[in-house]
Amino acid sequence: MSVTAAQGFLASGVAAGIKESGDPDLALVVNRGPSRAAAGVFTSNRVQAAPVRWSRRVVAGRRVAAVVLNSGGANACTGPDGAADTRAAAERTARAVGADPDEVAVCSTGLIGVRLPMDRLLPGIDSAAGALSPDGGGDAAAAIKTTDSVHKTAAVTRSGWTVGGMAKGAGMLAPGLATMLVVLTTDADADARLLDSALRAAVRTTFDRVDSDGCMSTNDTVLLLASGASGTAPGPAEFADAVHAVCLDLARQLVADAEGASKEIEVAVVGAASEEDAVAVGRSVARNNLLKCALHGEDPNWGRVLSAIGTTDAVFDPDRLDVAINGVWVCRDGAPGEPREKADLSGRRITLTVDLRSGDASAVLWTNDLTAEYVHENSAYSS
Amino acid sequence: MSVTAAQGFLASGVAAGIKESGDPDLALVVNRGPSRAAAGVFTSNRVQAAPVRWSRRVVAGRRVAAVVLNSGGANACTGPDGAADTRAAAERTARAVGADPDEVAVCSTGLIGVRLPMDRLLPGIDSAAGALSPDGGGDAAAAIKTTDSVHKTAAVTRSGWTVGGMAKGAGMLAPGLATMLVVLTTDADADARLLDSALRAAVRTTFDRVDSDGCMSTNDTVLLLASGASGTAPGPAEFADAVHAVCLDLARQLVADAEGASKEIEVAVVGAASEEDAVAVGRSVARNNLLKCALHGEDPNWGRVLSAIGTTDAVFDPDRLDVAINGVWVCRDGAPGEPREKADLSGRRITLTVDLRSGDASAVLWTNDLTAEYVHENSAYSS
Repeated sequence: MSVTAAQGFLASGVAAGIKESGDPDLALVVNRGPSRAAAGVFTSNRVQAAPVRWSRRVVAGRRVAAVVLNSGGANACTGPDGAADTRAAAERTARAVGADPDEVAVCSTGLIGVRLPMDRLLPGIDSAAGALSPDGGGDAAAAIKTTDSVHKTAAVTRSGWTVGGMAKGAGMLAPGLATMLVVLTTDADADARLLDSALRAAVRTTFDRVDSDGCMSTNDTVLLLASGASGTAPGPAEFADAVHAVCLDLARQLVADAEGASKEIEVAVVGAASEEDAVAVGRSVARNNLLKCALHGEDPNWGRVLSAIGTTDAVFDPDRLDVAINGVWVCRDGAPGEPREKADLSGRRITLTVDLRSGDASAVLWTNDLTAEYVHENSAYSS
Repeated sequence: MSVTAAQGFLASGVAAGIKESGDPDLALVVNRGPSRAAAGVFTSNRVQAAPVRWSRRVVAGRRVAAVVLNSGGANACTGPDGAADTRAAAERTARAVGADPDEVAVCSTGLIGVRLPMDRLLPGIDSAAGALSPDGGGDAAAAIKTTDSVHKTAAVTRSGWTVGGMAKGAGMLAPGLATMLVVLTTDADADARLLDSALRAAVRTTFDRVDSDGCMSTNDTVLLLASGASGTAPGPAEFADAVHAVCLDLARQLVADAEGASKEIEVAVVGAASEEDAVAVGRSVARNNLLKCALHGEDPNWGRVLSAIGTTDAVFDPDRLDVAINGVWVCRDGAPGEPREKADLSGRRITLTVDLRSGDASAVLWTNDLTAEYVHENSAYSS
């Protein structure tokens, strides 16, 4: 149920003293092979953290022997000094686990704009290397938490091979990757090209469709590492399906644990002229603060859905829009439909369905409500 | 200091019983001429309320004799019945004040997706017509309030002529018009073409640059009516300047009274390659929920400014971005600058300055912080 579910992987998580709280803050994931094939996708934010710039180059080489991850600091917007810090972390990890620094990916998460305490981080890497274990996936997942209340892991096993993974992310959760760190591992025998295509396809309809708070991080990273240790080479479709299942599981866990949220909201857009239209409408609805407040108050205020749809360029006729809340079609033909009181919003999960009645394309996005707790969590201290 | 500051205008505001609270909810503004030249700009939301659709046609005729405005209901997403209600309001107003229905503009604000109580609204029009007065501008401004805590009026007087106005708007305050109703009046002798060019120029850099909560309304309307009663025909530049001054005054009043806000935030983007770039960056910063929470907590978290800039297509180099908070350059070259502790955010007004260092263009946007009170106000009841 984690990055060590697949054969060939070791992991660990330790408290290196990066976080003032003394909580675990440093994780290692090591691929013992025989293969070291890898793929990765990164934030589309143009302001990118030093570890993202570094790991992008590593993944371009198509091989990753180890990943070192820290919470307690994003190492973003830290200039040339921050880049040197990332390189030092990769080099220390390479020495500690017996790898080439150019095959060590680095991930950091936490406050933007401050240097990492390297005097504690580097010795922490040595401690983590000493703690590596085939059962260390849970410890690794715990060490990358920031404002996450629980650690997130997932795995699926198919005929003789496994895909597993871990994720962190609770705020700055938005598109072009949902803001987070994710490491996926598999013991399938799969080359970097297959890993890349399966990963991109899965991310596109899972993490990329999470939009908890509209805020895109500088540090988003999703890595997929293959050890080949199962000796089994799955077909591309079967493999892509397994990767998608693990990504979807982790994406839903991110939405379930979003900062301050009291509702998990699925926005299903159907009847769109194109998938792009469906995503654009879903994104606009998912980002509408007024709607997110209304759903927090369990108020089926569908007018706010229509006002959000109306800001997009998607193909639709304003007088032929239908909207359902938890299955009750409260808006028909852009006007009142069934009584809004029929929609019961008392549960934690809410489904909004928007029918654009303009085609056959569709998309699903996931978001959260906007709460006083979200405001408190993001105003009371720097994160 | 209102829509009756200029000669030739009468106004009134009454309680017609549209609002359950019994507060004033219906306003009239009547132009007694000699001119009835007018211009208007409307929401760019593609889901448009019935009164917006109606008033757009009225303004296309370049003459407006009267404006009837109601709070307590937006008459948006109400289908053909809602359109008939708007027409009935215009016709009743025309009869009551002696005008052509095609020269009566209609504005509505309140909850989306419910019909207006026409049995109370239509008699209210008769009452308002009976109350018309050259001193009625304040009453009219009070009657269009929804969640506004104060009514908003402004006026400037130049050599022999005046531009005055009123505005409402506290939530759904966002671009492509800031969400609101605004009526401006002038006794200058100005034809519809001059009114239109002055109004569009003023709105572009005032109301359109307010982005309190990223939510664009279905009902935004800004009207400018000229009576010509002063007998003075100002030059185009002088007239545009006066219209701009009144619009800016009202726009700042909207930001000052935004729902639940505790901070008024000015986002000044300089050094941009184009004005479009400056606006895009300013808008992205103004809409970043995490940053708005941080500023609410008086935390100079400039990393959230950079992460917002990074989501835009504007021309910039991530390693050459400078950011100042209240004049303290906390970020230089995309990395830490002066100590963030130096920035004092304890006052109600905060200025963020972003230097893209890519050209000479600039833009200023106005927004608010994100507060628990905003969440409460927009989740506790339908609005």
